[in-house]
Amino acid sequence: MIIREKQNPIITKEQIKPTAENLVVVGVFNCGAVKYRDEIILLLRVAEAIANQNSEVIQIPIADRKIKNGYSIKEIAKDYHKYDFNDSRFIYKLDGKRQIENLTSISHFRLARSKDGVNFIVDQVPTIFPETVYEEWGIEDPRITHLEGSYYITYTAVSKYGVCVGLIKTDDFIQFQRLGIIFSPENKDTVLFPEQINGKYYAYHRPVPTEIGYPDIWLSSSTDLLHWGEHEHILSVATNDWSQQRIGAGAPPIKTKAGWLNIYHGADNDGKYYLSSFLTSLDDPGRIIKIANKPLLTPTEDYERIGFYPNVVFTCGAIMENDMIDIYYGAADDKIAKASISLDDLLSLHD
Amino acid sequence: MIIREKQNPIITKEQIKPTAENLVVVGVFNCGAVKYRDEIILLLRVAEAIANQNSEVIQIPIADRKIKNGYSIKEIAKDYHKYDFNDSRFIYKLDGKRQIENLTSISHFRLARSKDGVNFIVDQVPTIFPETVYEEWGIEDPRITHLEGSYYITYTAVSKYGVCVGLIKTDDFIQFQRLGIIFSPENKDTVLFPEQINGKYYAYHRPVPTEIGYPDIWLSSSTDLLHWGEHEHILSVATNDWSQQRIGAGAPPIKTKAGWLNIYHGADNDGKYYLSSFLTSLDDPGRIIKIANKPLLTPTEDYERIGFYPNVVFTCGAIMENDMIDIYYGAADDKIAKASISLDDLLSLHD
Repeated sequence: MIIREKQNPIITKEQIKPTAENLVVVGVFNCGAVKYRDEIILLLRVAEAIANQNSEVIQIPIADRKIKNGYSIKEIAKDYHKYDFNDSRFIYKLDGKRQIENLTSISHFRLARSKDGVNFIVDQVPTIFPETVYEEWGIEDPRITHLEGSYYITYTAVSKYGVCVGLIKTDDFIQFQRLGIIFSPENKDTVLFPEQINGKYYAYHRPVPTEIGYPDIWLSSSTDLLHWGEHEHILSVATNDWSQQRIGAGAPPIKTKAGWLNIYHGADNDGKYYLSSFLTSLDDPGRIIKIANKPLLTPTEDYERIGFYPNVVFTCGAIMENDMIDIYYGAADDKIAKASISLDDLLSLHD
Repeated sequence: MIIREKQNPIITKEQIKPTAENLVVVGVFNCGAVKYRDEIILLLRVAEAIANQNSEVIQIPIADRKIKNGYSIKEIAKDYHKYDFNDSRFIYKLDGKRQIENLTSISHFRLARSKDGVNFIVDQVPTIFPETVYEEWGIEDPRITHLEGSYYITYTAVSKYGVCVGLIKTDDFIQFQRLGIIFSPENKDTVLFPEQINGKYYAYHRPVPTEIGYPDIWLSSSTDLLHWGEHEHILSVATNDWSQQRIGAGAPPIKTKAGWLNIYHGADNDGKYYLSSFLTSLDDPGRIIKIANKPLLTPTEDYERIGFYPNVVFTCGAIMENDMIDIYYGAADDKIAKASISLDDLLSLHD
């Protein structure tokens, strides 16, 4: 039985200090999670928009390398013949093929610490801020993997060039080193395995093709974490009712007696997001042992159903200790919640 | 001045023996080109369809690993409410988002040899045939790079999983070794550099994102040719009139006194394909020195304007000897033609 934390949501946007006075925090969600020393560390995705918008134009923050932790502002006229403003997350162009003109907000990462995994103290300033040309529209959905003594953060880098996957390394959560783009567009939802398997590093990732194929989960290997290959298709959308539209890896794989435990998300045809899981062979992450035949978590609570983007539960990190798994997840794209389940109960969803 | 070969087209589908009796060759085009010993070798893309179709259904060949050099047949009812048959290359589903149900033909590779670069003898049987699950809808657009004594073929692998890039190695054009998928979907138009630069291998490739970004050219590096990273955006669509819709690397880079010479294709908003070129720094393939300000080749001849897919000139291989460049190219997606230009004349298009 999965049990939601009774203090849910455990982190809300009201707790986050905006990066600058002209910004408003529109969401804190999709966080990486790891145990570091005697604390639980969450790396939060914080989305900000320009505060006090007037009615004539929409102002969009764009990361600007000339300004330390700062944004320049792009203005888009509210021209309903030219743009579609119906999605809270994106502004679509109406000419020709459906292209996104801009996001409505921009995300950076903020560190939060806790002794009990429920009450978190959130840093007052950005921990990792968009910096490169591939991050001008923001950095999103960090996953943290503890690997060979260091912590590796895989994240979504968004810019006019597309949606791709970046890698950052840290040993102490104070200094962070960018290691470049590891998957070219269009790709996201990348999780690194916490150890080498048969002498290679592995990752699941989720490319998005256009007219042939679907947003499925793929496996890749690496010998240095920077260069990836031997790409292999692993899991298709629409293998069940809660994954008709899209799927993607969620928390980095957790090693269990039954195999690598992979908590992933699926979205149904209504765009409602669920969490579920699949197991892969400990010595071959390309071999699926079992896929859960029911969802692990469905958006049923108000904080999961109502928000910046409704009906979403989306995880980037889960921590297993003593066979109990704590799942930290973004709820309705604007708050962070937590749910816990025993390993045995989770594995029983696969029967 | 670019000069078309007077025997153009130099290879046509009438010269190609079908792989099996129930097949018809619908095109021979987009070929890799390399000098090997005292011969010019072309690796032809040969597209085949099922012969003698009846009027009720369309029969599609699908590569079948259970049959040596053979296809199984998928039948699609000619239901005009369900499918769009207007593109000669693809069958589109009409429900929901624009997805391709199947290609109308399937491609494999066939070797052709010539002493004079004009009169070619084409193998009677497939040289490289679709084999893996990523190739069930065919293999397309091979580029050959001579690198450290071996020949590496980058090619497009097409299947229900999407369009991705495979790598094959050969030392003799008799034995071929598959080295796996080097770029996950959606990607194509990948060319390897013919030597290491500052201790790394490099490739240009052309990912296709969905709603953010465009089909642009990217650069990646590798230390082993199998795993690729350090992805970097190089060249955008719509930098000129002949590349509004898409671009992609063409022939593998040619080392010249002026820099790496890259002959690439662009398509305008009418879907008409052109060849053009850009130059990159010899010690930094990520630095563009110049982009040609006029096309190198425009489809003007009947054999370029009329065919399986009209108005296409598309190269996968060019050979430079004594500062003369021979460009082998697919014309209208069903025949092979050749055009030649001196290096100085080509470079003058950049002024």
